[in-house]
Amino acid sequence: MLFDSPSSFGRTFRILTFGESHGAAVGLVMDGVKPDLPFDLEAIQQEMDRRRPGQSDLVTPRNEGDKLQVLSGVYEGRTTGHPIAMVVFNTNQKSGDYQAISELFRPGHADLTYDRKYGIRDPRGGGRSSGRETLARVAAGAWAKQQLASLGVTVRGFNREIAGIEGKALDWSFVERNPLRVADPGVFESQKAAVEAARAEGDSVGGVCEVWIEGLPVGLGDPAFGKLDGLLALACMSIGAVKGVELGAGFASARRRGSENNDPLGPAGPEKNDAGGTLGGISTGAPVVVRLAVKPTSSITKAQRTIDREGRPSEISTHGRHDPCIAPRVVPVAEAMCALVIYDAWLTQQELREGVVPSVSEWNWEAIEALFPPGPAL
Amino acid sequence: MLFDSPSSFGRTFRILTFGESHGAAVGLVMDGVKPDLPFDLEAIQQEMDRRRPGQSDLVTPRNEGDKLQVLSGVYEGRTTGHPIAMVVFNTNQKSGDYQAISELFRPGHADLTYDRKYGIRDPRGGGRSSGRETLARVAAGAWAKQQLASLGVTVRGFNREIAGIEGKALDWSFVERNPLRVADPGVFESQKAAVEAARAEGDSVGGVCEVWIEGLPVGLGDPAFGKLDGLLALACMSIGAVKGVELGAGFASARRRGSENNDPLGPAGPEKNDAGGTLGGISTGAPVVVRLAVKPTSSITKAQRTIDREGRPSEISTHGRHDPCIAPRVVPVAEAMCALVIYDAWLTQQELREGVVPSVSEWNWEAIEALFPPGPAL
Amino acid sequence: MLFDSPSSFGRTFRILTFGESHGAAVGLVMDGVKPDLPFDLEAIQQEMDRRRPGQSDLVTPRNEGDKLQVLSGVYEGRTTGHPIAMVVFNTNQKSGDYQAISELFRPGHADLTYDRKYGIRDPRGGGRSSGRETLARVAAGAWAKQQLASLGVTVRGFNREIAGIEGKALDWSFVERNPLRVADPGVFESQKAAVEAARAEGDSVGGVCEVWIEGLPVGLGDPAFGKLDGLLALACMSIGAVKGVELGAGFASARRRGSENNDPLGPAGPEKNDAGGTLGGISTGAPVVVRLAVKPTSSITKAQRTIDREGRPSEISTHGRHDPCIAPRVVPVAEAMCALVIYDAWLTQQELREGVVPSVSEWNWEAIEALFPPGPAL
Amino acid sequence: MLFDSPSSFGRTFRILTFGESHGAAVGLVMDGVKPDLPFDLEAIQQEMDRRRPGQSDLVTPRNEGDKLQVLSGVYEGRTTGHPIAMVVFNTNQKSGDYQAISELFRPGHADLTYDRKYGIRDPRGGGRSSGRETLARVAAGAWAKQQLASLGVTVRGFNREIAGIEGKALDWSFVERNPLRVADPGVFESQKAAVEAARAEGDSVGGVCEVWIEGLPVGLGDPAFGKLDGLLALACMSIGAVKGVELGAGFASARRRGSENNDPLGPAGPEKNDAGGTLGGISTGAPVVVRLAVKPTSSITKAQRTIDREGRPSEISTHGRHDPCIAPRVVPVAEAMCALVIYDAWLTQQELREGVVPSVSEWNWEAIEALFPPGPAL
Repeated sequence: MLFDSPSSFGRTFRILTFGESHGAAVGLVMDGVKPDLPFDLEAIQQEMDRRRPGQSDLVTPRNEGDKLQVLSGVYEGRTTGHPIAMVVFNTNQKSGDYQAISELFRPGHADLTYDRKYGIRDPRGGGRSSGRETLARVAAGAWAKQQLASLGVTVRGFNREIAGIEGKALDWSFVERNPLRVADPGVFESQKAAVEAARAEGDSVGGVCEVWIEGLPVGLGDPAFGKLDGLLALACMSIGAVKGVELGAGFASARRRGSENNDPLGPAGPEKNDAGGTLGGISTGAPVVVRLAVKPTSSITKAQRTIDREGRPSEISTHGRHDPCIAPRVVPVAEAMCALVIYDAWLTQQELREGVVPSVSEWNWEAIEALFPPGPAL
Repeated sequence: MLFDSPSSFGRTFRILTFGESHGAAVGLVMDGVKPDLPFDLEAIQQEMDRRRPGQSDLVTPRNEGDKLQVLSGVYEGRTTGHPIAMVVFNTNQKSGDYQAISELFRPGHADLTYDRKYGIRDPRGGGRSSGRETLARVAAGAWAKQQLASLGVTVRGFNREIAGIEGKALDWSFVERNPLRVADPGVFESQKAAVEAARAEGDSVGGVCEVWIEGLPVGLGDPAFGKLDGLLALACMSIGAVKGVELGAGFASARRRGSENNDPLGPAGPEKNDAGGTLGGISTGAPVVVRLAVKPTSSITKAQRTIDREGRPSEISTHGRHDPCIAPRVVPVAEAMCALVIYDAWLTQQELREGVVPSVSEWNWEAIEALFPPGPAL
Repeated sequence: MLFDSPSSFGRTFRILTFGESHGAAVGLVMDGVKPDLPFDLEAIQQEMDRRRPGQSDLVTPRNEGDKLQVLSGVYEGRTTGHPIAMVVFNTNQKSGDYQAISELFRPGHADLTYDRKYGIRDPRGGGRSSGRETLARVAAGAWAKQQLASLGVTVRGFNREIAGIEGKALDWSFVERNPLRVADPGVFESQKAAVEAARAEGDSVGGVCEVWIEGLPVGLGDPAFGKLDGLLALACMSIGAVKGVELGAGFASARRRGSENNDPLGPAGPEKNDAGGTLGGISTGAPVVVRLAVKPTSSITKAQRTIDREGRPSEISTHGRHDPCIAPRVVPVAEAMCALVIYDAWLTQQELREGVVPSVSEWNWEAIEALFPPGPAL
Repeated sequence: MLFDSPSSFGRTFRILTFGESHGAAVGLVMDGVKPDLPFDLEAIQQEMDRRRPGQSDLVTPRNEGDKLQVLSGVYEGRTTGHPIAMVVFNTNQKSGDYQAISELFRPGHADLTYDRKYGIRDPRGGGRSSGRETLARVAAGAWAKQQLASLGVTVRGFNREIAGIEGKALDWSFVERNPLRVADPGVFESQKAAVEAARAEGDSVGGVCEVWIEGLPVGLGDPAFGKLDGLLALACMSIGAVKGVELGAGFASARRRGSENNDPLGPAGPEKNDAGGTLGGISTGAPVVVRLAVKPTSSITKAQRTIDREGRPSEISTHGRHDPCIAPRVVPVAEAMCALVIYDAWLTQQELREGVVPSVSEWNWEAIEALFPPGPAL
């Protein structure tokens, strides 16, 4: 795990992202792309639309076009094996919205730290620290998800909790049909009410996002610093609003006995999945289940105490267009980050074993399906 | 974040670890070491002794020597600026203890996944997946802690929880004086009793480890994939027994309103520290507080269902010398990993700003001490 | 020297290039840029214009606009410390010129190897293997040269030889005033005649490019695989037309006695510079002198034997717009690559020594000027 | 090409070297090693013995044991897929030989530059800058050569020139049977006489080493900064005594017409090999031919002008045990470095093409043998 650039991610499949919220463009370069694969820009655009704001009245009313353009690496609809650069030119920039706060540090935002770290700061919408940077992650993640799908691996997420209200049922068919991307129709209304109440008071709420990676072979991930657990944690904790990550039983396992926490092994695979799909940081074939703690949106209209660039006490109320709950838009970003980790691990394993990835069919998948039915992981 | 090798960690200050539990040696190479610094091997050895088993009857009775030897990069007691290779030759290897299980996969261990991933496995004590690999982390972390201390930064940890029993008080002076490395003398006895009860039943318990990094300047860490949050998560989740990581309020923040969760900013710095010392992934000057979910030791003498290498059902009871609770030994490893991240971030920031790191004195530290007294972070 | 991506270059200051000759754009991302520095796009554009074809009748008559656009990392004319993405959108693409040869492999070109390596190839002007990729190198090199200039380091080149005719004098003032970028007015006419004769016969000629890096402190470069010699060799040999690289006396030193080849050391520095400015791969303070063997342009109108994609014998005569001698346009590219290596080495040394680079004034520069006057290095 | 550590080399197959000439040990860690391969330590030791001094009276009479020990990554004679650490403990260290010169900078050595760069220097035999560092390269290269041999690729070298005397014939069977590793029996005696004459005068001579890589498939190497030409140049120029590198016709091509220099393509492959086995930096299937300019040994007993650490003029005569011509011992090091580049390129190509490397049999190898018989490349 040598960290070359904070803007790059991956090993065998690599990305480098660039761009500021209100600069000319946000974009990325994908490198390590295999040659002669079909490149479906439309499918990538669809993933980006899932992240886009303005999808409902529960998220910010901005409606950025976010149309992705390909600058290189694709010839007549197929990858050439060379770097694929993609950009979204920024439009609909209301910098004016942000002028007022260029001298004040918004609590919960990177304004203060960027200002002190760099000695210069692009105050327009947070510049590089803006959530718009995740555009590039979703574009790359969409490519990774497409490749994984062709390998039989699915990566999908939902919000397990909104405003502290936890869903128990896991109805995947409901997730993309509700604006909060929750999976339990039974609690959706109360979750929705909590978000609306917060917005009415100029406040915000958080949530817990859960990502399931299914159809994995045994053997993805590496020892030491290359454990899937660690890479997924880096991937998810690098999303702005995320303050905690856990795999499988996560923090709950810290309160258990070993005899209760260990997953017994059977001929069909692990007999339960409290480990969350990894042992020693390497995939077991069971679903990898990751949970992310998403903090409430930092930008609220309620007045908050803060300081200006000279350190003088002040008060701030961030108007402009903000989500009362960012968790719904975190879901596609979390899926993208997990997909980047898993696809990279797949390619890295190919490299390790002469292109041989342990067969998915090595497990009895029907039995595994029975062991891990669509439903709460724990 | 380009992942070159799963056995390497860091960017400006880098390590590469090697070695198996029962091979010839466990070791590491530290690279990116500044020249002409005093090299205190004894101080490093002391940190390694903190990790060593056999320190009490609550941890494994093994008493490995774990004497560190320096092979390169030091001349007459000072660093030369060249790679420093260090090794611990393995002694006291009771491979016999493990022969019995070479054909069985231990639940909760990497036996199964290594076997399938590599097609070959060193069954002696888990080989590369053994906790002994953390020896190398602690050695490098000790060096990082020494350098950070000279910069006014301290990295220290304790167990907030053992067996689900949470300590409220934070008495640093107590931590290294009790075998569980807990910080609340008031609940130590009950925590100790829970560990002993588990051991008596051939079982194990987990815990929650908490690391405090204090004395940081503003501005350490990077945007996007280089956030301190993400790097600390990778660092901690790459420790074998860790299944969850959170910063500051962590998962609790997901259940709050933004107005409650945001840390107001005052002339002395953040007025509380629910963010855990970072904003936008960059240090705020407040203590960075990380919590790790440590699962109960997987090796238990209680019988468990498992399979052999041919997938046939079997039963296993792992004897040998194991900790009923690994959390006390995770503390120095967690400190080491956090120190590697922070020291690397410091050097990386030096590189970014012409060797100028934002001054610690930029905040009113007396005021910050008042804001963040020794005590629970939250 | 871990090679992450063939399209990336550098360590502390890094670039990633992308784009094909006739795709949408050619561009790059510069990462590791220090914050709050003035960003002079015009100065960068000027360097790019030096590389541009169509500057005289001795180079290709194409006149690409090659206007550089900045997509990120610059705010109000200053760097923000975040990745700077820059692109040149391709215009004036006469793909038709190349249709004829899409099925034939041009001798001396990468057509054959790309086709076999990737199983797919963008035949339009060589795609990724086109000299147009060097656009991105020159843009990044221009930034590096600007930064080095502010540190007192100059990087400049010329052609020592054209068509086997060697110049003895080194008149820097003449270099940019003649289309061949040669430095000896005395032989320019004969060199020019040789190029024109080759062109008249539908043929091409080569040359030897020489780059001087002056004003260096002692101590840039690293041991082992990080020697300046090695990095400069990689940098220069990665330019398409270059088939040989030497430092200082280079191949001539292989035919000497040690007593003749060693540079005696005096109080003012090395008393001569046959080493070419490095000892043990680290700068001595004397000028670093690099020579590149530039092969004759592979694209010639003369008929040549070749094969088609099915391996059938054929004949090819590459029409279209080509330089009878590419060496003049290699000069700015070679300067750029050397500047990237040296600037990166400077930043890396800052990182090693707490931001302290050994002072240039440590040598008696007047004496060194006397030792190494403007003139042949050897 | 992101340069993480000057002591590391490679991408898919990586090494990290450490150790000083007179420290405790010289060693390396090999990472990215495939699992479950037979590990033949004896074969590696044999390669190291080729590099060892004391093989004849034409090289230094030192006879270091240089016995390689394996510390990790091998279990019961097979690789485990984990890092393989190997060390040679230094013996027979006559530090006394060097005490005298610890205050003087040896011309042609790194003493001056290390001293200024690091502010501290291990004066014993050059420390990290010593040729002993190449021990580690040869060990890793031996492994790479073994793997390449199993793929049908051979890497072998010889000295084309000694003391300016060039051999024309290429008799591979003669190379390892003469102490100069030259390939032309007809000029061996005169080359030998030149070396002996230099030694008799306390002087030294240089040479030109040539490495042939045969049996390559088409398609190894990458575009842009990943060209085989560039990587081989970095690999060879990172060897201490090397001051120039060329591929194929190299510098000679700079003096030719394009029609003469281009290699026509025929059904059996390139009809000649002036390109030296690459087009666009990627292998053509023809032998890759690299030439290295090896300077005369810097350590000579003849008195030379130099300065001490305070910059005062002095005189030095380096006694101790030195080779009058280092070129014979450079041959195995050059082979090792080329093998590292080629093996890494092979693995990297496997990663790019789903484990499919273009078949060697794609060319008519009998025809290629006929085109490139054992003999001078040019």
